[in-house]
Amino acid sequence: MRHLAILGSTGSIGTNTLAVAAEHPDQFEVVALAAGTNVEEMVRQVNRFRPRLVSMATKEAAEAVRSRVDAGVKVMWGDEGVLSVATHPDADYVVSALVGSRGLRPTLAAIEAGKAIGLANKETLVTAGHIVKKAAERAGVTIYPIDSEHSAIFQCLNGERHKDVHRIILTASGGAFRDWTREQLAEATPEAALKHPNWSMGAKVTIDSATMMNKGLEVIEAHWLFDLPYDRIEVVIHPESIIHSMVEFVDGAVMAQLGTPDMRVPIQYALTYPKRLSLSTKRLDWIELGSLHFRRADFDRYPCLRMAYEAGRIGGTMPTVLNAANEVAVERFLAREISFLEMEKVIERVMERHQPITEPSLEAIDEADRWARSVAYDDRVCV
Amino acid sequence: MRHLAILGSTGSIGTNTLAVAAEHPDQFEVVALAAGTNVEEMVRQVNRFRPRLVSMATKEAAEAVRSRVDAGVKVMWGDEGVLSVATHPDADYVVSALVGSRGLRPTLAAIEAGKAIGLANKETLVTAGHIVKKAAERAGVTIYPIDSEHSAIFQCLNGERHKDVHRIILTASGGAFRDWTREQLAEATPEAALKHPNWSMGAKVTIDSATMMNKGLEVIEAHWLFDLPYDRIEVVIHPESIIHSMVEFVDGAVMAQLGTPDMRVPIQYALTYPKRLSLSTKRLDWIELGSLHFRRADFDRYPCLRMAYEAGRIGGTMPTVLNAANEVAVERFLAREISFLEMEKVIERVMERHQPITEPSLEAIDEADRWARSVAYDDRVCV
Repeated sequence: MRHLAILGSTGSIGTNTLAVAAEHPDQFEVVALAAGTNVEEMVRQVNRFRPRLVSMATKEAAEAVRSRVDAGVKVMWGDEGVLSVATHPDADYVVSALVGSRGLRPTLAAIEAGKAIGLANKETLVTAGHIVKKAAERAGVTIYPIDSEHSAIFQCLNGERHKDVHRIILTASGGAFRDWTREQLAEATPEAALKHPNWSMGAKVTIDSATMMNKGLEVIEAHWLFDLPYDRIEVVIHPESIIHSMVEFVDGAVMAQLGTPDMRVPIQYALTYPKRLSLSTKRLDWIELGSLHFRRADFDRYPCLRMAYEAGRIGGTMPTVLNAANEVAVERFLAREISFLEMEKVIERVMERHQPITEPSLEAIDEADRWARSVAYDDRVCV
Repeated sequence: MRHLAILGSTGSIGTNTLAVAAEHPDQFEVVALAAGTNVEEMVRQVNRFRPRLVSMATKEAAEAVRSRVDAGVKVMWGDEGVLSVATHPDADYVVSALVGSRGLRPTLAAIEAGKAIGLANKETLVTAGHIVKKAAERAGVTIYPIDSEHSAIFQCLNGERHKDVHRIILTASGGAFRDWTREQLAEATPEAALKHPNWSMGAKVTIDSATMMNKGLEVIEAHWLFDLPYDRIEVVIHPESIIHSMVEFVDGAVMAQLGTPDMRVPIQYALTYPKRLSLSTKRLDWIELGSLHFRRADFDRYPCLRMAYEAGRIGGTMPTVLNAANEVAVERFLAREISFLEMEKVIERVMERHQPITEPSLEAIDEADRWARSVAYDDRVCV
């Protein structure tokens, strides 16, 4: 039986993780939950799963939860709360599903506390891959990918030798605007960008999917997860999102993992590896499917993807800067302060101005993150 | 290093096996070769690979080979010759690639002699699956599939638990006539049937591909290889032959193995499992590929597929009868004695007349095989 702590329990990954736990009550116990400010959902989760500890992002949210749940449930808030959830002594497995760079420190704390990690938070590896990998090695902890793409690759590598891998191929849906021209993109609104064709996800990830920054961050994440150089990580646009990713081996054989778009599949696999459990998911129907398509992931069409490869290859603090500038750019796009295409301009300008530090400490990463955000908020970068 | 004996060395699988051996001379030694009557090709192979023993189907062919190769190479012929190749004391791995039911006895002899088996000969499992499986268990011998479809499934099962398999999905190109109507099929000639769209194979297999009997035999083979009931083995038409087959697991995840059509890939995998070696094969290019398609494998359109499932489910001697009747039907179609659609009629009539014996001995299988052939040659079955 797995004893779960979930960081980001009210988000898309968090609620799907709880759906998996609900389907197999004999396999999973929910020990601790951390979320942002969604009090309603947290109260529902507490009543349903009876965790011992929950934490909310703010004192107000925590107090609102506390007033509505059983007194036996400990309610905390802020950094201290989320770290307590991440290191809860009764949990042996932490699902790291906070959105953005605030996922890093609690994930690292969970690793150092010897918890197995189900990793959905991209920024943990994007900004601090070198630190996280070392910490996991030191603690003897395995990091199981939860992203559908990385889970697919993880599944394709099952039983294989690392030296037999020729390259990995991440598939990308192409996002909401995959059929739009660059000219049309100039006019793209937040409402249009939020309509993802295949997956229902949070706002940040959905915008990242439209710019392909999402895939760029996944490329950097894959570099760390699977210990491969960037020239052996490729991206192919596959509009149907049925093939979740692939691995090509030295003999030319390609292994692929496929399925209907349902995040519970990779989440459950991360929780049950190397076993599989039954899951009430929609089965693939080849006849209904009819066909699968592939297109080039064009760096001119998707400059965010190009910039992510560049940041990954430069390394050091550059991926942190890429990620922080992107978070601000998405926030400003959603607030209608900048246009869709200005997002990539903001990121490019911030990267241009950055002097990367190699092998940065957590403090240097935080500093680069703060610096990048302040520059990205400066309107002069959009000019 | 693997020490190879190849049964059927001058055929399509045999020559591709030797191509793999030639690419990795440090990994493979060719010890013994058995072939039919292709003297020219056997002489070339002997001069290139220097086996210790070769065997030809007939005395004439054997004498022709003997007169043209080094005196140090032992040349045999007939049943005794092929059994000597299959059990050569210096070989530790036997590639079983004879075409048709004559592949059974030498493969069984190789298993009993403790050789690992690379199995391309379908009939070995189709006609005597229960005997072969028991012999392999008794001898502690592993049977590695060489067929691209079964190799794909074998690769998809790597690292997985048998109990986690929900179903396997064999892909079928649909053969030379996949876009023809039943009316058009009535007029199909041997020349047209021999033009397979994706693979270059022998005449028998190519005709079987056009009728889908090939896939039907693969379904029965899969039943034995992967220990699954027939209702968990499905067939989907996939015209591009890029996805070589798939496995769906209990959690809804589907693993697939893909590649350009090159028999050296599954052959090499069967020889090197669980490792992979580099291979000079054409790499999959997703952009060039563009799309993959899927269609229903319709039992009305492909009665041979339906009959194969029926024969498999009935079991006993019925798959032997299906296979023997089919071999005769194909031979008679190639000789222009019967039409394309009469092939299925022949098989159906022979099956209708057969009283199957359960758990048959090798002798009972031979008897059923002979009986089915004699009935299939009788012109009255086509009326």
